[in-house]
Order: sequence, then C-alpha cells, then structure tokens
Amino acid sequence: MSAPADVVAQLRNALGDRVDTSPPALHAARTDKSGHSAAGMPLAVVHARSVSDVQQTLRIAGATSTAVVTRGAGTGLAGGANAGAGEIALSLRGMDRILEVRPDDLLAVVEPGILNADLNAALATHGLWWAPDPASRAISTVGGNIATGAGGLLCAKYGVVRDAVLGVDLVLADGRLLRLGHRTVKGVTGLDLTSLVIGSEGTLGVIVGATLKLRRLVPGEVCTIAATFPGVRAAAEASAAVTASGAQPAIMELMDAASLAAVHALLSLRPPTRGAAQLTIQTDGPAAVAEAERITGILRGAGGAVSVSYEREEGERLLSIRRSMHPAMERLGTTLIEDVSVPRSALPAMFDEIARIEREHSLTIPTVAHAGDGNLHPNFVFEPVLDDSGEIAVPAHIWDAADDLFRSALRLGGTLTGEHGVGVLKRRWLVDELGEDQWELQRQITRVFDPQGILNPGKVF
Amino acid sequence: MSAPADVVAQLRNALGDRVDTSPPALHAARTDKSGHSAAGMPLAVVHARSVSDVQQTLRIAGATSTAVVTRGAGTGLAGGANAGAGEIALSLRGMDRILEVRPDDLLAVVEPGILNADLNAALATHGLWWAPDPASRAISTVGGNIATGAGGLLCAKYGVVRDAVLGVDLVLADGRLLRLGHRTVKGVTGLDLTSLVIGSEGTLGVIVGATLKLRRLVPGEVCTIAATFPGVRAAAEASAAVTASGAQPAIMELMDAASLAAVHALLSLRPPTRGAAQLTIQTDGPAAVAEAERITGILRGAGGAVSVSYEREEGERLLSIRRSMHPAMERLGTTLIEDVSVPRSALPAMFDEIARIEREHSLTIPTVAHAGDGNLHPNFVFEPVLDDSGEIAVPAHIWDAADDLFRSALRLGGTLTGEHGVGVLKRRWLVDELGEDQWELQRQITRVFDPQGILNPGKVF
Repeated sequence: MSAPADVVAQLRNALGDRVDTSPPALHAARTDKSGHSAAGMPLAVVHARSVSDVQQTLRIAGATSTAVVTRGAGTGLAGGANAGAGEIALSLRGMDRILEVRPDDLLAVVEPGILNADLNAALATHGLWWAPDPASRAISTVGGNIATGAGGLLCAKYGVVRDAVLGVDLVLADGRLLRLGHRTVKGVTGLDLTSLVIGSEGTLGVIVGATLKLRRLVPGEVCTIAATFPGVRAAAEASAAVTASGAQPAIMELMDAASLAAVHALLSLRPPTRGAAQLTIQTDGPAAVAEAERITGILRGAGGAVSVSYEREEGERLLSIRRSMHPAMERLGTTLIEDVSVPRSALPAMFDEIARIEREHSLTIPTVAHAGDGNLHPNFVFEPVLDDSGEIAVPAHIWDAADDLFRSALRLGGTLTGEHGVGVLKRRWLVDELGEDQWELQRQITRVFDPQGILNPGKVF
Repeated sequence: MSAPADVVAQLRNALGDRVDTSPPALHAARTDKSGHSAAGMPLAVVHARSVSDVQQTLRIAGATSTAVVTRGAGTGLAGGANAGAGEIALSLRGMDRILEVRPDDLLAVVEPGILNADLNAALATHGLWWAPDPASRAISTVGGNIATGAGGLLCAKYGVVRDAVLGVDLVLADGRLLRLGHRTVKGVTGLDLTSLVIGSEGTLGVIVGATLKLRRLVPGEVCTIAATFPGVRAAAEASAAVTASGAQPAIMELMDAASLAAVHALLSLRPPTRGAAQLTIQTDGPAAVAEAERITGILRGAGGAVSVSYEREEGERLLSIRRSMHPAMERLGTTLIEDVSVPRSALPAMFDEIARIEREHSLTIPTVAHAGDGNLHPNFVFEPVLDDSGEIAVPAHIWDAADDLFRSALRLGGTLTGEHGVGVLKRRWLVDELGEDQWELQRQITRVFDPQGILNPGKVF
C-alpha cells in the first residue's frame, strides 16, 4: 500500500486535471441520495473521460492497493457508490456519449455516464426506447442503472434491466478491458458474465460501455386510470386482482394514504380523502383501450372510485403525482427509502405487515409500490442522529423497524431489494436472504475478478 | 481417485436400482443428437428421482474425484451431455414433476426433467405458457433448455431463456444445495447467479429445480405468412427489411433451397421451385392482422410470392415444414448442425458467406435461420469417418468449413452459438470469441463452484 499522497501524485501524473481533490468534490463523492455518507474523505475524484482514463486509474489503484469506488450521478439509495477515507472515487458521469444506434438491429452502444432520460430522448428520434425506467430517470445514469439493476415502473410488462442489456465492456481491477456479451439477440458462448455484472454494484469491475437491447416506441393510445380506495389493503387487493385477471398494464403504481397526502401537499393539490389509497394504472399498445375497460371493471368491482383518461398529457399529469414521491419525502425530513419486493399475490399481506410494523414500532411508514411487479418502497422518515464520527446516521429504532420489514418480506417469499441494491445499508441482511453457502460462493466469485479486493470494498458483502 | 468398481459400489449402496450399468443405458449416455459419442463407456447411469438422489451422487463423486455428466433427454447438439470413460452419467429425466403453478404470480416451480412440450400442455390449462420454444420442444427437457440457454423460434418477440427463469436450485459439486434467484419479478440481492447458471452446460452445478417466469396465453388471432423468393439472399434481405420496419412477428423462419427441397421430399410434398427460398412468418396478439398486412406489403415489395393464412391449423401446417428440418437432414446422412448468430442486419451478408463457403469447400450446406433473431443453423451433411478409437467422427474437411463459418460469423459481429451451446464440438473456437482474458476468468469462476473440476470436465472450456 502506497502513501495517499503518492497515489494522488501518480493519478495526477497520468490524468492531469481530471484528478480533482477540491473539498466540494471530495465531499459530494462521499454520499448519495440515501443521505448516508462514507466515513472520512476520499483521496481524489477522477473524472474519467475515456476507457483509457479508467484503465489508467485502475492500474495505479491496483499497483498501490488503493480502493476504487465507481460513481455515476450519485442518485443511489443504498450508499453503494459512496467513497470514504483512502479511496479513489472514479466518476464516469463525463463518459456520456451514445456511440452507435442501430434501428435495424434494435441496439445501441453507449458510454455509462449518459442519463437515462437523455438516452431515451435521443432514441425517440429513431422511434426507439430503452425500457428500464427508474423513477430517477431524469437524474440517474445508464451505468448506475446497470450496476444496480434498477428497474422502475415498467418491469412487469417490459422487463428488468438484465433483459435489456446485450453486453458490457468491463475494466477489471488490474486495468484490463473485457468485452462481455454480444450484439445478437441470442448468444450462449461460455458463461453469461454480462448478467453477472448487472447488479454487481461495482464489485466486479468498472462498466465503461454497454450494448443495449432496444424496443420500438409503442404505437397507439395510452390510457391512464386513477382509482381511489378507502384504504391501502383494498388498493393492494385490487392490484393483485388486476394481475391475476391476465390484464397486463404497462404501469401499475400504488400510493398509500401517507404518501398521497405528502405529495398532494408538495404539489399544492386538494388534500386527499383521509385514509384513501390510490392506484394509477397505464395501458398501452394496440389493446390499450380494451384493457383499460377491463381493468376499470375489476377496480370498480373491488370498490374503487375510478376515472380514466385517454390523453397522454393527462396521463403524464396523473403519473407525475407518483413521480413526486421522492421530493415529497425529502420535505418531511430525513428518509430511509426501502425497496422490498414480494410475489404479486402477497402484496396485500405485505401491506398488512407494514401496518403491523407501524403499530409495533410507533412509526408512520409512507409507502408506494410498483404494484404491477410487487416492489414496495416503504419510507422511514426520522430525525437523524450523529454517529461516533459525527456523521448523520439512521437511528437504531429505525433499523429495528427496517429489520422487521426485511424479515417480513423474506417470509412472504420476497427479497431485500428489488432494484436499489444492497450497497452498505443492507449488507447485514444479505446472508439472511442468500444463506451462508451462497454468500461465501458469491464472495469467492468477486475475488476471481478482483483478487486484491480493491473494487468497492465494504459494499454488498 | 477411487477404483471405478468402488465408485459404482458406493452409488449402488446409496441409490440401489437407480444405478444402471446395463450396456444399452451406458451406450445411450455416451451420445446426443449431434451424433458425437464420448470416448469409452461411463461407469454408470444414475436415474435420479429426487434432489436427495442428486446430492448423494455428487457426494460420492466428490469424495472419489469422479467426473459427473448431467443429462436430460439427450437432445443436445454439441456433445455437451455425453458421458465417457470413468464418468458418472447423472440423468434427471425422471425428475419431471410440476411442483407449483401460480397464475396470480405468473410463475411455476418445476423439476428439470419435464419435457418442454409437456410443461406447456399443463400450463395451457391455466391459460399460461413458458416462452422458450426450441424446435426440439416435444423431446427436450426444461432443464436441458436452461443448461444450454436454448432459445427457439420465439426469442425476438418473447425473449431468451434467461428472460424466462427467476431462480434455479443448484446442487454443487460437493452435494450442497443452493437456492438461487427469487420468486419476485424484481430482485437484485447480491450477484445474479441464476443467470450465470443458465447456459453453463453442467459446469457449475446440477440444476435440480427451476422457478419459471410465465406468460399469459396470447389472446386473439394468429396470422401465418408464407413467402417464396427466387433465392436465399432475397429472402434474407426481406427478413431484415421486416425487422427494420418495426414490425414484430412472433416467428420469422427462413429456409434456403436445399433445406426446403429436403423437407418437401421427407413430407412427400411437391418439389419446390429450384433455387427458391422461403420465409414463414407468424404474427400474434391484438395487432396480428394489421401487422400481417404490413409485413405482406414489405415482402411483396421485396419480390416475394406471398400467401397469408388466418387459421391456426393452417399456420401450424405451414410451420410444420420448418419443424421437419431435423428429420429431413437425418435422412440425408450424418449431419453437423451449426448454430451461429449474427445481428439481424447482417443476415444477408452471412448467407453470402455461406454461399462462399459452399463454393470454396465444395459442399452443399442446407441452412435454416430464425431470421427474426439472426440465428442460423447451417447443416453440414457428410460421410462419417472413424477416428482412432473407432468412433464415428466429423471429417477434417467439414471442420475446416465449419471453422470458416465461425470466423465469418464473428467478423460480422456475431457469435459461435446462439442456443445449442459449446459442448465439446465448439470448444476449440471458444477462446476466439471470448479472448484469452475472459476465457481464463470464466475458467476460474467454474473452479469456485467446482474446485476439483468434476462437473462435466472437458466440456465448454
């Protein structure tokens, strides 16, 4: 291990002014949208502009046994890209080019730093889109999306991130560049390392490029349904009934009473009926109208007050209520946004568990759910405490409630994290889901990619 | 390493009459539908009936350092499941139960030995299906499908195998059972080992169960289009034009003149026009008729003689011509069925390469293609030779032509194998596609799962 000053000097020698040691840059690299900050200050932020910049950074890191934390736009919610004392923060945000768009092959080759929304704006001019659609799409990068396996609103109908990536270019811990995957629809040559890298949260290598599987823009109308229910359990049952009916909405979002109230306050809308929960459902494609009618019938049968809009703009307005959840929570205080996922039939039971946890832990837990795919985001709002190193931390009683939440999700056949990743915040529950044997096997696989353990150490495992 | 007789005795002691050493069973386990046979006779065939049977087999294999070759129905086309001298053939064909079907969660839990067609027949009673659709579906198992990443006819519209598997239960080389993946639509806890196991061809563990992601049966009409073109290049250009137009057929199959002639002969149909090639295209879903009309226009504009059928039965009859390719080839002689895949825009260029290889190597190479996804199956028909051990082998000049084919596909941005796997037959080209660094990394990953190297040794790597 080299002295920190020596590492920075080597980086500067190789990368010049792309090495940033200004206090604001170092401070920003310690944190993400979870509010969690890494302990201490990173050595430097490297603003990579090319694959070669990344390779040079990794070679220096490898030679000096220095930890490297890869970052995109810093919108993570699990602390997975937070860089702390002695670490190099490697920012790929500046590598944001679209290198190739092939409408005939339905693929694009991109650099990792491009924002999700910018990519889709560019693809739209070709009549194309990339399906992963995290709520953060306007501010989050494609590379971060791939590194966490962030999914978003459209997964039930249009798939998860790993369904939408054909290949990734990966710089290993020693600076070597691997081209994983293929440009073809099918390909089974050797092990599927592309899928292994998706969701690996910076522990296997640095994603410096991706070959994305695209879709044609969906033609036809978009129908948006808003349905209000007296309570969250009724809304959850209605959403499960929609899925069980065989209808396939593009989007089906659920907001509980506390979420709805917070967003209405943020947007200066009339306060919602006390206790009411809402489903916002969108259908698209050639059967959009027929499916909307069928879904409307199911929702009314389940006791919902339903309105339908056939205008795209009105649909976007209705969905903007859902998309305002994160800023609405930020106004309430410091928030731990959770991310459990359960089989869709278990959604009502999971909301029962959340109600129980609220009672037993004396908390209000505003919750939204991607009800179409069973992914819930319960929000723990709290007064932050300072930890031993003077950093803002989640209080112990909040972690107790979160622990209860995770165990409930696992009991219902679910998972700790549907799309945000494990990062640092969920590390201690990882073994509960994976089991000791799988946990150890996964650790060993990371060691094959990164024998020194310099890639995002202390994250995930 | 224990004496072979001792290994068999231990297996018999643990598993009784599920251990089969009859010569016909041993002989059958040496080969698959590729026609390739492993050298020598395996020690025994274990007909596993349960996860525990598999675990016991692996424990004995691990303790005695005996190689284990996992098999399903033996329909592979790359020799990947062929067991030879000193090896245990572990057959999962008898583990064929459907353990759970959840229409509300769109998932099923199955044992690996169930046939693809049997699974879909059972799911149809629930209004459901599993999308992977290899041409061998009537005789191939779901486990084999997952182990090779076999895709089939519907991949462009309905995805590849890894898009359709949520989790697998895996017995490791030492007999431990891991449950990988999840029952939820989304899940990003830790590394995605499920995807890593898909297509790993028995090198990482034994798949003893799978949680499958299901779809609703597609409602509405099915339209089937048959289009005849004067030559294969015109047909390939027409298929690329269909893809580039934004239309999304469920199936788009291409047969060249030699394939068409062979199938017509097998089915006692009138001989096709000399040199003519055929596209068979199926559209489904709510836009089936509109898409069929659009595609018909494109095909006519490209010089095709087009007929359209709106009857499901007539559609199946037209597709049965395509599905008869394998038996038609078997009538012509010994066949090496290849499996390259290229980006769809490169299909015409790949057919040019095949024509060149036919000329330069003085061969006829009947070729069918899943033109919707760019996956080609060129068939090398040859007089077999006997190798040093008296086994039927592919002659050197055929391998020379296949080598030319593989290199052409890679040059066009394609891959060695779209869905059949590497097995033993394509091992020597693996490093050409992966590169030395990735090849070595993949080898090391297999060693994490299987430190002794007893799982399907000599396959893939």
